[in-house]
Amino acid sequence: MSTQLPDSMRAVVLTGHGGLDQLVLHSDWPVPVPAENEVLIKVAACGLNNTDVNTRSGWYSKSVTEATTGSAYEEVNEEDPTWGGAPITFPRIQGADVAGTVVASGSRAGASLVGKRVITDNWLRDWDNPLSMHNTGYFGSECNGGYAEYATIDYRNVAAINSNLTDAELATFSCSYSTAEGMLTRANVTATDTVLVTGASGGVGSAVVQLAKRRGATVVGLASPAKHEQLKDLGADALLSRSPENPGAELQQAIGRSTVSVVADIVGGDGFADVIDVLDRGGRYTCSGAIAGPIVSLDLRTFYLRDLTFTGSTIIPPHVFTDLVGYIERNEVRPMLAATYPLEELQTAQQAFIDKKHTGNIVVTL
Amino acid sequence: MSTQLPDSMRAVVLTGHGGLDQLVLHSDWPVPVPAENEVLIKVAACGLNNTDVNTRSGWYSKSVTEATTGSAYEEVNEEDPTWGGAPITFPRIQGADVAGTVVASGSRAGASLVGKRVITDNWLRDWDNPLSMHNTGYFGSECNGGYAEYATIDYRNVAAINSNLTDAELATFSCSYSTAEGMLTRANVTATDTVLVTGASGGVGSAVVQLAKRRGATVVGLASPAKHEQLKDLGADALLSRSPENPGAELQQAIGRSTVSVVADIVGGDGFADVIDVLDRGGRYTCSGAIAGPIVSLDLRTFYLRDLTFTGSTIIPPHVFTDLVGYIERNEVRPMLAATYPLEELQTAQQAFIDKKHTGNIVVTL
Repeated sequence: MSTQLPDSMRAVVLTGHGGLDQLVLHSDWPVPVPAENEVLIKVAACGLNNTDVNTRSGWYSKSVTEATTGSAYEEVNEEDPTWGGAPITFPRIQGADVAGTVVASGSRAGASLVGKRVITDNWLRDWDNPLSMHNTGYFGSECNGGYAEYATIDYRNVAAINSNLTDAELATFSCSYSTAEGMLTRANVTATDTVLVTGASGGVGSAVVQLAKRRGATVVGLASPAKHEQLKDLGADALLSRSPENPGAELQQAIGRSTVSVVADIVGGDGFADVIDVLDRGGRYTCSGAIAGPIVSLDLRTFYLRDLTFTGSTIIPPHVFTDLVGYIERNEVRPMLAATYPLEELQTAQQAFIDKKHTGNIVVTL
Repeated sequence: MSTQLPDSMRAVVLTGHGGLDQLVLHSDWPVPVPAENEVLIKVAACGLNNTDVNTRSGWYSKSVTEATTGSAYEEVNEEDPTWGGAPITFPRIQGADVAGTVVASGSRAGASLVGKRVITDNWLRDWDNPLSMHNTGYFGSECNGGYAEYATIDYRNVAAINSNLTDAELATFSCSYSTAEGMLTRANVTATDTVLVTGASGGVGSAVVQLAKRRGATVVGLASPAKHEQLKDLGADALLSRSPENPGAELQQAIGRSTVSVVADIVGGDGFADVIDVLDRGGRYTCSGAIAGPIVSLDLRTFYLRDLTFTGSTIIPPHVFTDLVGYIERNEVRPMLAATYPLEELQTAQQAFIDKKHTGNIVVTL
């Protein structure tokens, strides 16, 4: 490890489940030391994502039934395991989508990444068995992440990238686009599909729009009318409001058919039944979030009589991140950078993220 | 067509959505004439199934939210399409699982089946495109079925069978075992799986138990304790009560693990959340019915954070029926004949079917 590195750094530290005031800025937090399989990254930018809010608020607790508003902590049961199978421990540095430069490496991590501009694959895996669905976690949730000047991560979770994009732009991709590409992979979306995307103006939603278009599918997004123009620019074939009153008729008018073959959902909540109802016989529903509320009402008749297939998508095969790096380098996807904030304003940035008035991704810079 | 056939026959005719009194016995109903692609079967036995009850009561109407109790007609909206996409028309002869002998054939159906002992594949298909999920229906629901001395059906929906089983025993298989094998096919069940079967003592449930064991899986059934002994005889590795109070702990005690890789469900209702909760990460749920009620509450967090896959199973690829005939001929599955009734007592038989005190299948004989 280099000797020119400082001992302490600026970091925003989550001190417990609770409101935004649990995010505390420190200027003298210890710089982490990479373990043998880890590299140390000097963080240039770090994107915000729903996991930040859900981990802080304890939304993954079964005691919680509300939307991703950041105030679920009022209901949380501290004893509940998270989705990772164990409670989160504090203090915790959150933040997943890091763009930065590798400045040191552990004894088994090799030196080849040192000095390279990189982005992070945020899935913490058992690298002896990378497709295993056990012993997993998320960077910035089950371990410390990127809301700090320096961060450590397994060298196999880092990819060097050649790109003209800015650091803040590079920090928009990993979480949202890996999640989106994971959903499209689970649903096996091809050019013959018509894909309905909920929450199309969010980070994951706008990534689904781009990546489904990249596969050649017809794409219909649900989003507030104020955001339709931007989503058209991204390639969406049609846009409807967030909660269409008559989805079948509105689809018919927009694309000439009243059903879709695939729904890609990160919203859930009250709109769930409506999006299921417009699925073709044999249609596929894929989900990687439920920001409007996790508890939904399902009519099993619709489900089984139409031979639907539902796929939950959380753990992503490693090739998805590698593929994504290629898409970025070849400019097959474009960043949707909504706003940047300095690290010191993470609370303000996260409030803006929760308010969902933006289109695309919010990033803090260092 | 043979000239020795009578012009009229005994038949039980459903006159409209409603109670059991809508099932009316006639002694002089016209014998049907096979169309060019059809054969005429002299019915020896016909098995009962949930579709009989649901079609009569209008349960497939979206206006209905209750269980398969046979009284859903109090809520039905006559304008609603059924799952087949169009309202049922009356009068209708119900009954799907026919065992009998082919006595005549249409001009394009060939003579090779005439004189053969047969059972029926109850999926009405577009035989020019047999894997299509469109233009389908069910024998005895979207067309007349087997609660009559004679029935017509497409010759491609009939298989000759060599078996020492009785007619009533042969009439237990088609609907239940095709449904069950279709579910196991959709969920891709193999010898490495542990399968939890709801409603394990019913026609489909007991078929799932046998067919999952045939694939080498470990099988746990949910059923009333009074039926556990019979299900053990069928090969179930463990049995729990219909609504276990603590499914995880009871599974742990019964099979040494608190989760399963597959749930095969035809019950739905209030127990849905519990069976989803015991699925492994990456587990599969497959469903082909919801006799305890179709509207269920789903926690999308469990669904997506565990990377679950749900498959609805209704339309069954044609090879499943062909496979089933082989299983029967090779005695790889055994009939579960709970009771027989003469055709004249169909109302009584259907009440017994609804009361669910039996294990296996109820059949009417002619």
